[in-house]
Amino acid sequence: MSVPLLEQLIEAFRILPGVGQKTAQRMAYHVLERERAGGQRLARTLAEAIEKIGHCRACRDFSETEICGICASSGRDRQLLCVVETPADRWVIESATGYRGLYFILQGRLSPLDGIGPRELGLDLLASRLQEGEVTELIVATNSTVEGEATAHYLAQLARRHRIKPSRLAQGLPLGGELEYVDRGTLSHAFGMRSEMPD
Amino acid sequence: MSVPLLEQLIEAFRILPGVGQKTAQRMAYHVLERERAGGQRLARTLAEAIEKIGHCRACRDFSETEICGICASSGRDRQLLCVVETPADRWVIESATGYRGLYFILQGRLSPLDGIGPRELGLDLLASRLQEGEVTELIVATNSTVEGEATAHYLAQLARRHRIKPSRLAQGLPLGGELEYVDRGTLSHAFGMRSEMPD
Repeated sequence: MSVPLLEQLIEAFRILPGVGQKTAQRMAYHVLERERAGGQRLARTLAEAIEKIGHCRACRDFSETEICGICASSGRDRQLLCVVETPADRWVIESATGYRGLYFILQGRLSPLDGIGPRELGLDLLASRLQEGEVTELIVATNSTVEGEATAHYLAQLARRHRIKPSRLAQGLPLGGELEYVDRGTLSHAFGMRSEMPD
Repeated sequence: MSVPLLEQLIEAFRILPGVGQKTAQRMAYHVLERERAGGQRLARTLAEAIEKIGHCRACRDFSETEICGICASSGRDRQLLCVVETPADRWVIESATGYRGLYFILQGRLSPLDGIGPRELGLDLLASRLQEGEVTELIVATNSTVEGEATAHYLAQLARRHRIKPSRLAQGLPLGGELEYVDRGTLSHAFGMRSEMPD
């Protein structure tokens, strides 16, 4: 006997991040009980998105077009290039800061043990971009993790080889953070990097 | 300009239970980055399930066929009928107990304020089932909530009108539970319902 469709559906939901057997079952029941129209829309949109969304040729972000909206925009400062690990990072910088330069999305971080090297992150594309000479500052916005820092170090060297100034986001206490609850590493770093207060 | 497909996809994911903006975004990125094949399978299975899965005519459970596998089985005890609120409840009883009778799924609970009355729960169907005379015990397995208890009360009256014995799952301390951590209502009930220990 073939596997019942309901079980196939529960299994299919499990590809989603953080979704185990129990949650997948709840999702399947929920859609069938109460959200059939929404479920149809999800199925249609998902299939269409997978078919049509590729990567921008310039920045490697997700894009329906060959060049994404930000890269194609005439209103951005083309001298600034901000390198991030994922499209989600690009999204959060775009929505939280007033940054008006361009981006480059690695779609990952250097991780030799997982077989992710410079080629997988499109660093040859980044190098030829830096070679063109338009970029004057490479803003390295990889995560503050071990792998993120290693990637940042590699990117800084790459930038210097092209005589471009690399910069890194400031590290320290989060705004509104209380000393008591900040981790020791961050506190120690912030203490060491203290700066004089203006009058 | 039309809404970008990526934003449509994020919005579409939000119909799933417990999925807000942030989780929906993570799901969309995850599928596009790492699970395109799984995503296509999800889209296909979801569309097919919504199209083909309806309700069993006998027990109202989800079913691809007019009569579901359990109701059609010749190996079940047709004198026992267990009434549950949802397909998930049916599933957990089926997998945790050795019950070999049949089920009836309300797909909800009595809730007059939400416009859910006997008709919405298919109680006319249940009544004609009891009328047939095959069932001798109606096992009422609705939840132990206020609405579940009200529904149980209603079902017990319905059973008695057809001269059928209604029964209810035992209530008391959970197996392995510690008195200190059990809620007061359960403890008080368990205390009052104490039974003599066998020799």
